[in-house]
Amino acid sequence: MKILVLNCGSSSFKYQLIDMDGEAVLAKGLVERIGIAGSKIKHTKTGKDPVTREVDFPNHTVAIKYVLEMLTDPEHGVLKDLSELSAAGHRMVHGGEKFTSSVLVTPEVIQAIEEVVHLAPLHNPANLQGVRALMEVLPGIPNVVVFDTAFHQTMPPKAFTYGIPFSYYEEDRVRRYGFHGTSHYYVANRAAEILGRPIEELKTVTCHLGNGSSITAVDGGKSVDTSLGYGTAEGVLMGTRSGSLDPSVMLYLMEKHGDVKTVSDIVHKKSGLQGISGISSDLRDVEEAAEKGDERARLAQEMLIYHVKKYIGSYAAAMGGIDVLVFTAGIGENGISFREDVCRGLEFMGIKIDPEKNKVRGKEAIFSTPDSRVMVMVIPTDEEMVIARDTKKCCEGR
Amino acid sequence: MKILVLNCGSSSFKYQLIDMDGEAVLAKGLVERIGIAGSKIKHTKTGKDPVTREVDFPNHTVAIKYVLEMLTDPEHGVLKDLSELSAAGHRMVHGGEKFTSSVLVTPEVIQAIEEVVHLAPLHNPANLQGVRALMEVLPGIPNVVVFDTAFHQTMPPKAFTYGIPFSYYEEDRVRRYGFHGTSHYYVANRAAEILGRPIEELKTVTCHLGNGSSITAVDGGKSVDTSLGYGTAEGVLMGTRSGSLDPSVMLYLMEKHGDVKTVSDIVHKKSGLQGISGISSDLRDVEEAAEKGDERARLAQEMLIYHVKKYIGSYAAAMGGIDVLVFTAGIGENGISFREDVCRGLEFMGIKIDPEKNKVRGKEAIFSTPDSRVMVMVIPTDEEMVIARDTKKCCEGR
Repeated sequence: MKILVLNCGSSSFKYQLIDMDGEAVLAKGLVERIGIAGSKIKHTKTGKDPVTREVDFPNHTVAIKYVLEMLTDPEHGVLKDLSELSAAGHRMVHGGEKFTSSVLVTPEVIQAIEEVVHLAPLHNPANLQGVRALMEVLPGIPNVVVFDTAFHQTMPPKAFTYGIPFSYYEEDRVRRYGFHGTSHYYVANRAAEILGRPIEELKTVTCHLGNGSSITAVDGGKSVDTSLGYGTAEGVLMGTRSGSLDPSVMLYLMEKHGDVKTVSDIVHKKSGLQGISGISSDLRDVEEAAEKGDERARLAQEMLIYHVKKYIGSYAAAMGGIDVLVFTAGIGENGISFREDVCRGLEFMGIKIDPEKNKVRGKEAIFSTPDSRVMVMVIPTDEEMVIARDTKKCCEGR
Repeated sequence: MKILVLNCGSSSFKYQLIDMDGEAVLAKGLVERIGIAGSKIKHTKTGKDPVTREVDFPNHTVAIKYVLEMLTDPEHGVLKDLSELSAAGHRMVHGGEKFTSSVLVTPEVIQAIEEVVHLAPLHNPANLQGVRALMEVLPGIPNVVVFDTAFHQTMPPKAFTYGIPFSYYEEDRVRRYGFHGTSHYYVANRAAEILGRPIEELKTVTCHLGNGSSITAVDGGKSVDTSLGYGTAEGVLMGTRSGSLDPSVMLYLMEKHGDVKTVSDIVHKKSGLQGISGISSDLRDVEEAAEKGDERARLAQEMLIYHVKKYIGSYAAAMGGIDVLVFTAGIGENGISFREDVCRGLEFMGIKIDPEKNKVRGKEAIFSTPDSRVMVMVIPTDEEMVIARDTKKCCEGR
């Protein structure tokens, strides 16, 4: 069974073709600048060099047609013809409270997704464009949507409710939803698998730290709390997003700028590592500047470490201690000194790391000491594989 | 040395007359509805029944004159004449970054306080009214101001900086200030005293939980982090204040109501226990309703417990574990089942409580088990005593 996985943005998308027999990635690629001058595709057949081509992609449908041509191309392709393709799986950012797991696309599903578009006005329409384009180009195969929010729908009300009047939840569904659910689900389950223990027995904190970041408390395999909330700015300091703010700081910004759009841009696009350091939204640049003595860069670096450390402590308190701590995504997988700094001082909760074992980037590793009560791990995330597996499962259940 | 302690609001104030020889409270009282029809005073000479009188108090000066008459009254008074009064100590909510400890009032000090009025527009002017009234009525004695923010000025930048562009701190001093500093200082030090250990050796979390609440991480006697921030709505769920909110929730509220004042009123006056339960801002009422099966009351109760629990965990992570956990203020001193619920599940960080010893209200107690790594305590707060002590110290240093 061969599955095409699509992760669509408004002017770009990533794709992978996965053979579920052996879960092998046969090809993957990236299409950029759809509808913008200079649109292009970068396609990689596994084991070969990437091919980059500038092609005019006026819309997602044209781009997806081109991808299918690449996938069946005698030289760069991996399929004899499109009949080999069994299904497509799509990342969908927001499923609201309706979707607690992945589903086969039907007209009713599309309508339900459209009903929660206001919760992710930038993401859901872009994700839906991919679904629609694929339905147009390949009407014969089933499509499955996999929601970033679904994994977090097990959170109890005490974790997802904000302290504002309850009517905002009742009327407008304002609550914590959480994101990166597919990633948290993957690494929490992969950790249990590596440790050879049933996930039902484990209390895990998963740190997905990249340009966007979130930390999740996973109790017995279920998300019970997560740091991203109603929107995508809460929690720890991110590349350009603020993380949690005092409501009074938001009132101050509103008073000063007088305009919701301006304040939204500040907390989403001008804050975080970028806003504090004034140098970059990329932790590597910030660390480099801090190393050279830049004080604001040092502060940005310290804030991120401090925020992550505090979330780990708070989620340990929420679950009554933890058994497993996982780092994933760009910073989590590659930040060697970052991970060491986060874990320093957490011995009181059973975390003891081996700095030598921690010297690993982008591959699976356990870097706690043999006598550490908590297993501390690096696990590269693989959201595409979760989407492919869910797609297979949903199709088999038809 | 006899000291008058004043805590002035805009239309009311509390006072205590304290004899520093033996630190005995000789008399205390409450003046209400200043400048409003029906103003009154409730005065209590220690050991006697309270006296309540309706008196016309058009302003603070008239009210303070009346208090001084009461204090020298042959029947209700405790002073032969006003020459016995050595000094007055005043609670001042906000000292900005300028004041890291209590100071004698001078014209320069008043000017400096006025310069940070924008940081506490409701509180500082009211506090200053008391200072000015006393200077007018009793020009001969020194006045000392004790700041709610001063204790927290030891926080490191990583704890007091918000993740928004750094210019807001540089230009407008937008940062975490924290409040209830006098209370956190008092109970942290009192805990060390009770335990007979130097506070320099202790890592303490102090939970000041009342109608307004804050939790502080005290490392070696110094505040290193606290849950209230730039304003007075951040942190845990309070009586009518929201506690921490996703920035996106604030954007949603602004978008919906279109007006900063309305949103400020929502997060300060209509949220918290009141907003979630729809029943009351008082935890006792909420607990009673929850007991009877009210689901929203149950949720409000659970949220508060959960928030406090998570802060304890996060501050333990911030300090590398804790030695002492203190509960104070209305909920902290009296919430027996509340305290038990908060501590449940925190065994992983060395907290083990004795439910029998926990059955205490409003008095000092250690309710951890003898083998608990963390000492868990109830300590009634006494901000007036700190103000009196600081006043004495500042006067002696003249």
